[in-house]
Amino acid sequence: MTAPFVHEIRVGWAHCDPARIVYTGNIPMFALEAIDAWWEAHLGADWFAMNIDRDIGGPFVHLSMDFRSPVTPRHVLRCEVAPIRLGESSIRFRVVGRQNDTLCFEGEFVEVFVAAAAHRKIPAPDDFRARLEKLMSEEPS
Amino acid sequence: MTAPFVHEIRVGWAHCDPARIVYTGNIPMFALEAIDAWWEAHLGADWFAMNIDRDIGGPFVHLSMDFRSPVTPRHVLRCEVAPIRLGESSIRFRVVGRQNDTLCFEGEFVEVFVAAAAHRKIPAPDDFRARLEKLMSEEPS
Amino acid sequence: MTAPFVHEIRVGWAHCDPARIVYTGNIPMFALEAIDAWWEAHLGADWFAMNIDRDIGGPFVHLSMDFRSPVTPRHVLRCEVAPIRLGESSIRFRVVGRQNDTLCFEGEFVEVFVAAAAHRKIPAPDDFRARLEKLMSEEPS
Amino acid sequence: MTAPFVHEIRVGWAHCDPARIVYTGNIPMFALEAIDAWWEAHLGADWFAMNIDRDIGGPFVHLSMDFRSPVTPRHVLRCEVAPIRLGESSIRFRVVGRQNDTLCFEGEFVEVFVAAAAHRKIPAPDDFRARLEKLMSEEPS
Repeated sequence: MTAPFVHEIRVGWAHCDPARIVYTGNIPMFALEAIDAWWEAHLGADWFAMNIDRDIGGPFVHLSMDFRSPVTPRHVLRCEVAPIRLGESSIRFRVVGRQNDTLCFEGEFVEVFVAAAAHRKIPAPDDFRARLEKLMSEEPS
Repeated sequence: MTAPFVHEIRVGWAHCDPARIVYTGNIPMFALEAIDAWWEAHLGADWFAMNIDRDIGGPFVHLSMDFRSPVTPRHVLRCEVAPIRLGESSIRFRVVGRQNDTLCFEGEFVEVFVAAAAHRKIPAPDDFRARLEKLMSEEPS
Repeated sequence: MTAPFVHEIRVGWAHCDPARIVYTGNIPMFALEAIDAWWEAHLGADWFAMNIDRDIGGPFVHLSMDFRSPVTPRHVLRCEVAPIRLGESSIRFRVVGRQNDTLCFEGEFVEVFVAAAAHRKIPAPDDFRARLEKLMSEEPS
Repeated sequence: MTAPFVHEIRVGWAHCDPARIVYTGNIPMFALEAIDAWWEAHLGADWFAMNIDRDIGGPFVHLSMDFRSPVTPRHVLRCEVAPIRLGESSIRFRVVGRQNDTLCFEGEFVEVFVAAAAHRKIPAPDDFRARLEKLMSEEPS
């Protein structure tokens, strides 16, 4: 068993709306940043490197989020990221955001693998699949 | 029957990522802007006016989106917004984004009504409910 | 004499911070969007089309802004854009933002022309220069 | 002499435009985030805490930036922040951004102190002034 991957985000004034909480539209941005950091930590390349260096893109086809508690600048935002399903050409992540141990949001996000320049769907690259399957078998349940 | 409400957004370079399409994280932002414009057009107050002038807030508790085709700066983005369910203290919207008649995304978004300063859930205000029920009865199906 | 070019922006809740005014960081974004719209209106191509279709990039080397009055969602933001100096490889714009006839901000922004794929500075393309010189001679002073 | 204050920012795919570099409009956002972090580190309150807990606001009246090299996701962005002039009711910061020891941008930013709820200019609060003068006397030159 490995520890869950957690990406920390500094929440600030810039993210908040007049209700004095983070604007809803910024929260998918936070979750996506956490997924990008997950790729970098686990596959050695973030989306930028994957696209530019390997011509592998990962556009999203779906996201859904439930907002449980407001996100504020009072605490760091800890985003826990885990892959939960690997398909032929897609991968589904679960992202859970917490501040000071309070659950703020949870969501699921589905990326598909594409040949970046050609914008054409491809199977998960072999080295990715091997690494992803290993990681998913080790995920805490 | 009334025509669907459509909010138009100018998509630009600023919204695009190195894949030359709008970054995923900007698309919930677009849909939310369209909902804000819907309130302004139909209830006479956008979120800012509702919060500041009437102390009524509308935080989101849920959103889900399916991305069908990339959004690009080649065409205006037309976001069709419709309320689809009014609960005791919540309202669910459907937002469909199209460019040049191509379906780009569709999603659902749930707001709850709150006393803004108190951050406390409230029933939909009476004048809102009356207007919303009338609008929903007129929605094209 | 031609009328000044004005790009209108819908300001909303999403742009505001807890001080109930538009967050400072969003204001350069607005001015840049107005410049992008200026290119589209006057040269027939926004930054996206210029880059993708003609391999001409326009990265910024400088911007400065003075903020005179808060920007809020109470009125549309009218951004007046004018080119004020055309150099060998650069162009300087002036952008003035107003809401309801109140001056909100003024700023200057300098782009350089580059061969986009090569990231190499180039002289202003001939057809751009001809058009820009004509436009600048017609600017209201 | 104290070491310069440096705020680190993770740059990612989300920040980049189709030119494969950070979009210009995101760079003032980065510099502002660094200033917000400077306040938190040196005065014990970021803009959110200052506004909400002490009713002290700090709207910007000016910013200027020179962009020296593109910012990319290849390296962390290190933003060095220093206050350079304290006026009766204002403070001017210098922010310098570097990646992998390359100078990416430099800029100056001026905030004024206001009574937040009243939107009225005030002198720098006494405890801030004492702390700021001490900090500025210790700045590396």
